[in-house]
Amino acid sequence: MKAKAAVFREIGVDMKIEEVDIDDPQANEVLITTAACGICHSDVHFAKGSIPGPVPTIPGHEPAGVVEAIGSDVKSVEVGDHVIACTSMFCGLCQQCLQGRPYLCMDRRQCQRKRDDTPRISIDGKRITQFADLSAFCEKMLVHETAVVKIDKDIPLDSAALVGCAVTTGVGAALNTAKVQPGSTVAVFGVGGIGISIIQGARIAGARQIIAIDVVPSKLETARKFGATHTILGGPDSPDGDPVKAIKKLSRGGVDYAFDAVGIPLLVQQCLYALAPRGLAVVVGAIPTGQKLEVDPGHFYLEKSIMGCFMGSNRFHIDALNYFDFYKQGRLDLDSMVTDRFGLGDINEAFGLLDGGEINRAVIMF
Amino acid sequence: MKAKAAVFREIGVDMKIEEVDIDDPQANEVLITTAACGICHSDVHFAKGSIPGPVPTIPGHEPAGVVEAIGSDVKSVEVGDHVIACTSMFCGLCQQCLQGRPYLCMDRRQCQRKRDDTPRISIDGKRITQFADLSAFCEKMLVHETAVVKIDKDIPLDSAALVGCAVTTGVGAALNTAKVQPGSTVAVFGVGGIGISIIQGARIAGARQIIAIDVVPSKLETARKFGATHTILGGPDSPDGDPVKAIKKLSRGGVDYAFDAVGIPLLVQQCLYALAPRGLAVVVGAIPTGQKLEVDPGHFYLEKSIMGCFMGSNRFHIDALNYFDFYKQGRLDLDSMVTDRFGLGDINEAFGLLDGGEINRAVIMF
Repeated sequence: MKAKAAVFREIGVDMKIEEVDIDDPQANEVLITTAACGICHSDVHFAKGSIPGPVPTIPGHEPAGVVEAIGSDVKSVEVGDHVIACTSMFCGLCQQCLQGRPYLCMDRRQCQRKRDDTPRISIDGKRITQFADLSAFCEKMLVHETAVVKIDKDIPLDSAALVGCAVTTGVGAALNTAKVQPGSTVAVFGVGGIGISIIQGARIAGARQIIAIDVVPSKLETARKFGATHTILGGPDSPDGDPVKAIKKLSRGGVDYAFDAVGIPLLVQQCLYALAPRGLAVVVGAIPTGQKLEVDPGHFYLEKSIMGCFMGSNRFHIDALNYFDFYKQGRLDLDSMVTDRFGLGDINEAFGLLDGGEINRAVIMF
Repeated sequence: MKAKAAVFREIGVDMKIEEVDIDDPQANEVLITTAACGICHSDVHFAKGSIPGPVPTIPGHEPAGVVEAIGSDVKSVEVGDHVIACTSMFCGLCQQCLQGRPYLCMDRRQCQRKRDDTPRISIDGKRITQFADLSAFCEKMLVHETAVVKIDKDIPLDSAALVGCAVTTGVGAALNTAKVQPGSTVAVFGVGGIGISIIQGARIAGARQIIAIDVVPSKLETARKFGATHTILGGPDSPDGDPVKAIKKLSRGGVDYAFDAVGIPLLVQQCLYALAPRGLAVVVGAIPTGQKLEVDPGHFYLEKSIMGCFMGSNRFHIDALNYFDFYKQGRLDLDSMVTDRFGLGDINEAFGLLDGGEINRAVIMF
């Protein structure tokens, strides 16, 4: 069937809205009418070439929608169900899946079509690479069943969409990856969609002190609204000075957890340096390919750690439902996270605004 | 009282055996007649200036001996007791002590004499800095009570001495810091006293595969004797090639834990790169001041971690006794770890041999 999509063909060249062909579902596939899709910094990284991948493609990996058709073997959703989708699809059989880490699935090609199959998405019979195995900046999505979770119909689809990436990554970084403890102290570098989610996760986990650091003053206001107890203005001209010193002063010697929600090696370094003894620095943001991390290993004498985080260590089918419970209890604010809504035709403008740090979470509405 | 000691006064200049004055015990202090003291790479680092500290001093921090006198408040040992000592003394009252981490005690000055007190060690009335608050390359040691643990009299004192540093650090790195799990896979870079202790700790913890890497072929033989299941010859001319690739091949994709027991940033990098997804690299060796660690942060996408280890995350008064239980059960081999014994007068020669990689654990016998 035909659907309109934002097609990315070349770095530095605006996406155009093109008509694409979406195939019919195979046995384990779900066809979804897209309702909303958040724009993530990973999409922007991809469009700028700092995290490269194959083209042509359709970005977008934080969607919500309504099931339009299902394959013969699909059990978990029915036509008409409201769903969200996540790139953390999984085979369920590999070493990582069997160890409870489906987000690190080693055999996700089981969730893709074979090379000589009809492609899920094409234009004039030519394959379009499916970004994150989702390609959600499109009116229709054809995805593997394990990418999809059914949600209640009373949850607004634009708010729900954020759970597909930002919320799963950020709240999961706090709850699953770092396992933030009640009474602990937390620093979060970068107050975007993921930073806000980390702050909310840390608050849910009972952190006593949550320090947010950003270079944009208005984002610090936002951070306080979502649960930050303290804020520090970063950047070379900040009146707050060196953020490491400021964090150490606020926390009386260093924080128990520090998160880089941006993906800049200098911030990972500052995370490590701002920790209390035995503290944990978590790399959540996507660091552009080719950049190196350099640290003074003297910090390891204090048994500090640096840990990677991939998509919030999610078990999406468990975590997403948990997060909607928190949402309904008023403990996880999804609605206020959506700061801007755009139509599909405005996607290049929305990418530019996100990249410029001017907006928080923009959602493309279909 | 008078005692003979190896006094270090200047980098690059051999220590001389000098006669020093040891003061009488104050309320919380224990006077020990030193029986044996292992030589650790940290002593050698200090003598070479790569881990600098104040001089003049008497190195040595892995001792065993017999209690000769105790202060009025000392409860845990009596005159005539056999003891070992460790630099991880602690106040018992600070934030780290209260969180079960006495090895990271923030107020160890409580275990030292005040600046205007009579010094514990002096020559002609001039203070000699007490290295690691122990200064064990001396016939007598005057130390704080919390540095000392009583041991059974049937344990040979030269074997027991190694528990004061190498064994506590290495076995503790496996059991306390990394918490190696049964059935897991482990790589250990560097087969010295600490590397052997990590190997033994991993074996006690039930690791399925223990891969030892060293540049000295004879040390790989030693590693197998202590529990390594596989060995890799490191260094540029090795027939085993790139150790990261060799480890990944042996472990079918990477190990769960990798330990740097040497203290070289390149080895920490190799530890990180040789891990399986979600694996843990542990920095155990002391990295000389000023050296930086550089890594490709792409490894964090697989949720790998780098963690510091300080003295095996020891609670010395608990762990040391546990380790002697393992020793008596034949599960922890201390006796074979002592490869060479020297008199105090041979200390410079012993330092040179250890630094040259020719011996494993040398013990100075008094």
